[in-house]
Amino acid sequence: MFYIIGVGLGNVKDITVRGLEIVRSAKRVYLESYTSILPENKLQLEEFYERQLIEADRELVEQGADEILDKANEDNVVLLVVGDPFGATTHADILLRARDLNIETKVIHNASIMNAIGCCGLQLYHFGETVSIPFWTDIWKPSSFLKKINQNKSNGLHTLCLLDIQVKEPTWESITKKKKEYQPSRFMEVRQACSQLLQIIDSNEFDGENYVTRETLCVGAARIGWPDQKILAGTLAEMANVDLGSPLHSMVIVGTLHPLEEQFLKQFYIENK
Amino acid sequence: MFYIIGVGLGNVKDITVRGLEIVRSAKRVYLESYTSILPENKLQLEEFYERQLIEADRELVEQGADEILDKANEDNVVLLVVGDPFGATTHADILLRARDLNIETKVIHNASIMNAIGCCGLQLYHFGETVSIPFWTDIWKPSSFLKKINQNKSNGLHTLCLLDIQVKEPTWESITKKKKEYQPSRFMEVRQACSQLLQIIDSNEFDGENYVTRETLCVGAARIGWPDQKILAGTLAEMANVDLGSPLHSMVIVGTLHPLEEQFLKQFYIENK
Repeated sequence: MFYIIGVGLGNVKDITVRGLEIVRSAKRVYLESYTSILPENKLQLEEFYERQLIEADRELVEQGADEILDKANEDNVVLLVVGDPFGATTHADILLRARDLNIETKVIHNASIMNAIGCCGLQLYHFGETVSIPFWTDIWKPSSFLKKINQNKSNGLHTLCLLDIQVKEPTWESITKKKKEYQPSRFMEVRQACSQLLQIIDSNEFDGENYVTRETLCVGAARIGWPDQKILAGTLAEMANVDLGSPLHSMVIVGTLHPLEEQFLKQFYIENK
Repeated sequence: MFYIIGVGLGNVKDITVRGLEIVRSAKRVYLESYTSILPENKLQLEEFYERQLIEADRELVEQGADEILDKANEDNVVLLVVGDPFGATTHADILLRARDLNIETKVIHNASIMNAIGCCGLQLYHFGETVSIPFWTDIWKPSSFLKKINQNKSNGLHTLCLLDIQVKEPTWESITKKKKEYQPSRFMEVRQACSQLLQIIDSNEFDGENYVTRETLCVGAARIGWPDQKILAGTLAEMANVDLGSPLHSMVIVGTLHPLEEQFLKQFYIENK
């Protein structure tokens, strides 16, 4: 059997009891570590799980699926992922590959940012499409996510913005070489995302109508589910100047606030701090 | 400290290790049982948690918050909820009440249908606004959710439909009486939701443009996260005739399918069964 088990968000003990039992009894346990950030380091996880973990980087999960799935129709093999197993498309890929190989599969769900973001008090069913905000480069400054934010805002809906993560990205120079060299890991902060958004708005170079201004209410959410989780709410201009500390960060562009949402969110307003 | 702990979806062991530790050491543990359906009965949960659980019905959670929060600034008090704590507005309410009483609060997240629905292979960031489909009565047949489904569909997005749950609803006759009498519990099935949708479409009585037809692809998801989870995909007309078994059911009205989504979803097509 091949298991994909979500380990949750911020604490070694956020794995479910059922997940832990499977981990402890499996033949091989892989730890996927490039679509998110590990709540604790690998050693701490190994100590708590009482298991050795095999690190699975992007290359192994995307191109080495058959290595991971080797003998999984005889033994139990586990792939651990941060959050919920269906947060990244590569996990659907490896499940399909297992199916092709006639290997039985099982998924153990857990919390992910897609539902845990509810902790800021905004109701999950008032969210529209989720967007990803990528790091800009000197020559590549995409702004298409603003259109989706505006689409949501015009319907009164909130937008969850997932901020770019770059882990184990090969350097441009090494991309065609046999021995890859990697760029240092980078995690986009809320203030960077806000500053990119401000630049797009100020440039006036976007499609369709725009409802996002310097005064638009935003929620910055750092390390959700971690012991030092931090949530702050303020205008887009304010949030561009706020340091929320270490990664991971996410952000919500607020749509129309319902009274209970407003009452809950108030505790996070910068002006009330 | 007042804790709200998500117990996950379908198995007593779906609580997180941290959640279980808190439950076992708390002074009082309430079990909220009206916004979802318990994966196992209360006795099984009590046996596994090694704790007595106090049942918290709608009246207690909505009107008896102070009873639940009594002495929570000295002792640890837990409210267990199915799925994730932020699935229902009443949980935000009780957290705010605790804040007013200067009681510290903590939330232990878990999987909920809002992220676990990813197990059908549709990517969570291709979903638009979630809708709720209510039971119709003889004189009340709302259809406003179709507008939201169409809004999503016109943007190529999928729609998660949460189907009505009626647990411990007082009968009309007893609503003003001191001693309430309750209607039997009801849980909407996918085929009922589809048949209501078909009636709306056939009636031609709806606002704006309509993109939903008898041929629209739908995914029926029953008992997600349970050992006997069942997923089937077919046209709206087909799904109106499919029996997915016991509750809880949810449904997705599919927007534009991406190739990987289609490849994954295919395994659930009625015609392939």
